[in-house]
Amino acid sequence: MFVLGIDPGLTRCGYGVVSRNGRHLEAVAAGVLRTDPAAELAARLAEVHREIVALVSEYEPDEVAVERVLFQVNVQTAMQTGQASGVAMAAAAAAGCPVTLYSPNEVKSAVAGWGGADKDQVEQMVRGQLGLTKPLRPVDAADAIAVALCHLAMLPPARRVAKAGTR
Amino acid sequence: MFVLGIDPGLTRCGYGVVSRNGRHLEAVAAGVLRTDPAAELAARLAEVHREIVALVSEYEPDEVAVERVLFQVNVQTAMQTGQASGVAMAAAAAAGCPVTLYSPNEVKSAVAGWGGADKDQVEQMVRGQLGLTKPLRPVDAADAIAVALCHLAMLPPARRVAKAGTR
Repeated sequence: MFVLGIDPGLTRCGYGVVSRNGRHLEAVAAGVLRTDPAAELAARLAEVHREIVALVSEYEPDEVAVERVLFQVNVQTAMQTGQASGVAMAAAAAAGCPVTLYSPNEVKSAVAGWGGADKDQVEQMVRGQLGLTKPLRPVDAADAIAVALCHLAMLPPARRVAKAGTR
Repeated sequence: MFVLGIDPGLTRCGYGVVSRNGRHLEAVAAGVLRTDPAAELAARLAEVHREIVALVSEYEPDEVAVERVLFQVNVQTAMQTGQASGVAMAAAAAAGCPVTLYSPNEVKSAVAGWGGADKDQVEQMVRGQLGLTKPLRPVDAADAIAVALCHLAMLPPARRVAKAGTR
């Protein structure tokens, strides 16, 4: 099965597509969607929507996992990140993909074994699971793959098995 | 010119289309988009997006005005409202409509004369400007029309004149 993981953001939105065939995990695609911070908010959100529609159309993920946006110090940034995650969720759901949200701690726990893991530890564990020797860059893409791996780890076996037969 | 005003919300999203021809203001459409609180967040956001796409396609507004989402007591609600506004903005921008945000205080000041006006006062002033004798219901629709009227009041004259000729 294919899972599209999204690390939402308005200026930088990470994405990663992970396929699983039995025990074999593979990163099919990973990257960062960028929008121009100087452009208007609505236009930037429309761009994120268009890009996620294109990703879902290209990779046809079975499921989509999105990192939940928490309120940090900067409320304005949190709102814009939340809006970017909202348009990404809307694009995925409109294409018929089930969408699941995970908190940053859930992602770190699932991938690195504990919720306090830093970005480097997460990136190393992601590489380990995927058998990659080179660093995963940019870091937003590694985070997005971690979200996809988290979803694969959290899925009930029945759902994994049922879906796995389709690819 | 036609302005689509949006009072964003996930469970209830108010909309109102106001046309202005010279000094004549008219409410062309007003209503509330509802999504099922029991449905999944991504599906609800996709529905808001689909409905706004349909509204923009039907009424072809020249501009879209959206009430800015502020952080209230309930952070979770503020985030979901912000996400609903995000997908609405994305849908409008994708259709080529300029999108402008106004704070609740800006809307109240423009329509009722002061930022502390309550919902009833705003609704009465909206009716007065549109020459309506019956109450505007539901209240989310009246709020959305207020956002559209605020935008018409705030637009620079040159932009109003230039656009007015097209309708």
